[in-house]
Amino acid sequence: MKTRITELLGIRHPIVQGGMHYVGFAELAAAVSNSGGLGTITALTQKTAADLSNEIAKCRALTDRPFAVNLTFLPSLREPDYPGYIQAIVSAGVQVVETAGNNPARWLPMLKAHGITVIHKCTSVRHALKAQSLGVDALSIDGFECAGHPGEDDIPNMILLPRAADELSVPFVASGGMADGRSLVAALAMGADGINMGTRFVATREAPVHPRVKQAIVDATELDTRLIMRALRNTERVLTNPAVERLIEKERRLGANISFSDIAPEVAGVYPRVMLDGEVDSGAWSCGLVAGLIHDIPTVQELIDRIMSEAEQIVTGRLLPFLDRPAAA
Amino acid sequence: MKTRITELLGIRHPIVQGGMHYVGFAELAAAVSNSGGLGTITALTQKTAADLSNEIAKCRALTDRPFAVNLTFLPSLREPDYPGYIQAIVSAGVQVVETAGNNPARWLPMLKAHGITVIHKCTSVRHALKAQSLGVDALSIDGFECAGHPGEDDIPNMILLPRAADELSVPFVASGGMADGRSLVAALAMGADGINMGTRFVATREAPVHPRVKQAIVDATELDTRLIMRALRNTERVLTNPAVERLIEKERRLGANISFSDIAPEVAGVYPRVMLDGEVDSGAWSCGLVAGLIHDIPTVQELIDRIMSEAEQIVTGRLLPFLDRPAAA
Repeated sequence: MKTRITELLGIRHPIVQGGMHYVGFAELAAAVSNSGGLGTITALTQKTAADLSNEIAKCRALTDRPFAVNLTFLPSLREPDYPGYIQAIVSAGVQVVETAGNNPARWLPMLKAHGITVIHKCTSVRHALKAQSLGVDALSIDGFECAGHPGEDDIPNMILLPRAADELSVPFVASGGMADGRSLVAALAMGADGINMGTRFVATREAPVHPRVKQAIVDATELDTRLIMRALRNTERVLTNPAVERLIEKERRLGANISFSDIAPEVAGVYPRVMLDGEVDSGAWSCGLVAGLIHDIPTVQELIDRIMSEAEQIVTGRLLPFLDRPAAA
Repeated sequence: MKTRITELLGIRHPIVQGGMHYVGFAELAAAVSNSGGLGTITALTQKTAADLSNEIAKCRALTDRPFAVNLTFLPSLREPDYPGYIQAIVSAGVQVVETAGNNPARWLPMLKAHGITVIHKCTSVRHALKAQSLGVDALSIDGFECAGHPGEDDIPNMILLPRAADELSVPFVASGGMADGRSLVAALAMGADGINMGTRFVATREAPVHPRVKQAIVDATELDTRLIMRALRNTERVLTNPAVERLIEKERRLGANISFSDIAPEVAGVYPRVMLDGEVDSGAWSCGLVAGLIHDIPTVQELIDRIMSEAEQIVTGRLLPFLDRPAAA
C-alpha cells in the first residue's frame, strides 16, 4: 500500500507500532519493521542514554529497515536525561522519532536539526495544530479508544479522524482502536494515512511481555477496560482487575475534590512491574478498548500480513461491489 | 449503492434517519425518503394514536417511497398507548418500524405478525444479540458518539461496529458520529450495512426545528456536547449551554450518591420545549459529537447526494489508488 505515511517513512505498509513503556524493546520493534511496518523503541524504558544506545544497536542488528524511537515528555520532579537520549538517537542515525506527552517545542529543533522525521502523538485537534505549526512531520491522532492516556476530551476516532483531516496538512496516522484490516480501511476512509497500533502488538508472539498478559488481552472484551484518575485530569485507560476496581471505588467515594495523595496507596498498588513479571491479578497496565477485537496471539508478520490482505479484500471485495462496480482486474 | 440494508428496506441509499423526539415529523421523514434514504416519524412525539395516524397520512401524501415509524420504549409511570400507536402503524400500512429504548420483546410479535420490518436500536453487542434472538430484522448500533442516550458502556463505533459485525447475522446500520461520505465508507468498512443519522439531519433545511437550533449545531465543535445524568445511569448527550453546565456542576458536587430528586430542578431547567421554540440559551437538546463535523444547513437531498458522491470518490479515488490499483472503468 502506498500513502503519504509509507512515502514519508520509507515503509511498505502504513502500520506504525506506537511507543509503549516496558514493551517497546528491540525485539518487537525489529519484528514490526521486518514485517514492513515501523517498529518503535521506547526511550524512557531504558534507564540511561547508554542503555538506549545499546537497545538501538540491538535493533539495528535485527533489522535493516527503518525503525523509530519514542520520546515521551511528562511533567516530572526529576526530568529524564532528554539531551542524552536525543544524542543517542542522533548518534545511532535513527531516522524517525515519535514524540508524545507534553508539547514537543523544547526538543523539536534539536531533532529537526539532525534531519530526523518527527511524528507527534496527541489526543486533540488543537494540540495537533500546535505541533504542526512547530514543524513536526506527521501526527499520530489518538482517540478516546486508546490505551494509556486518552486525554480529557473523550473524542473517539470516528469524529477525531475526519476533524483532523479537515484541519491538518501534514500526514497523520490513526491511533486508538486499531486492530485489523477493518480498522485500517476505516481510518484511511476518514482521512488518515495509516494506523498506529499498541495493544494489538502486545498480543503478538514477539512482544516481550509475560504470556499471562497477552492471554488477559485475548480474554478481555471491550467492556473490560477502565478509566482511572479521571478526577485528577490524568486519565489512564487500563485493563480492569481487583486492584483497579478498588482504586475506582475510592475515586468514586471521594468524588470531585480528590487529590493525588488521597489515592496514592491505591495507585501504587496498581503500578507494579506487571509488564515484566505478569502479575496480572494485582497490577494494572494500559490496554485499549481494542482488546475486544483481539482474539489471538499471532507473530507480528502474520498480524501485519493479515491486516493488509483484509484491507485489500474490504476495498475490492466489499466496498467496490457496494458501488455496483466490478473490481479492477 | 446496494447493501443488505438497501435490499431489506427497498431504498436507494443506505442512509436511515433515526427517530428523534420533536424532530421526526412528516416533513423531514418525507424529505429523507424522497432523497433515497429512509425517513422516520417519531411516534411518541404525537400525543395520541390518532395524531400518529394523521402524521403518517401526511407523510404518505408527501412521498411514495418507504418510510419508518420510531417506537421508543421507556420506563414510565404513565405508559404511552403503545397498542394504539402500533394499530395506527399497521392500519396505515407502514412497512418499517424502528424500535429503541427497552427490550422490544413485548411488542415485537404484534409488529412481526403484520409483516413489518423491525430495526432495533441499541448501544451494546449483548443487547443487539438479544434483539436478534427475539427476531428483529436489522439493528441500529449506536456508539458512544451519539446524541441522546449512549448507554453506560462508552464504547465508540470504531470498536462497536466490528464487534457487532463479528457477532450478528442480521444487517445493521451504524449510528452515532455519522456525518458524511467518510463516515459512511468507514462504517461499511467496519462491517455495517449502512448508516443512521440524527444530529446531521437536524441541521438541514427541512428539519422542523428553530433556525437558531440548527445554527447552534453548525457553530458547535466536537468539544461542545456534555453527558448529563451519568450518576443516575440514565446518561444523555446534549449540547452544552449555561443551564447544562449548572446541572453538571451540581452533579459533580453531589458525586456518586445522587438521586433524581436532588437534581430535579436543574433537569427541569434543561428540558423546555427547545426544539420547538429555539430557546437555545436556556434549554438543552440531544446533540451528538458529530456536531464537530457539521458546517452547513443543506437540503436533505443535497446532503444525501453529497454523502453518496463523497463515498464513491473515497472508494474509487482514494482507497483503490492506495492499493496501487486503477479504478474500474
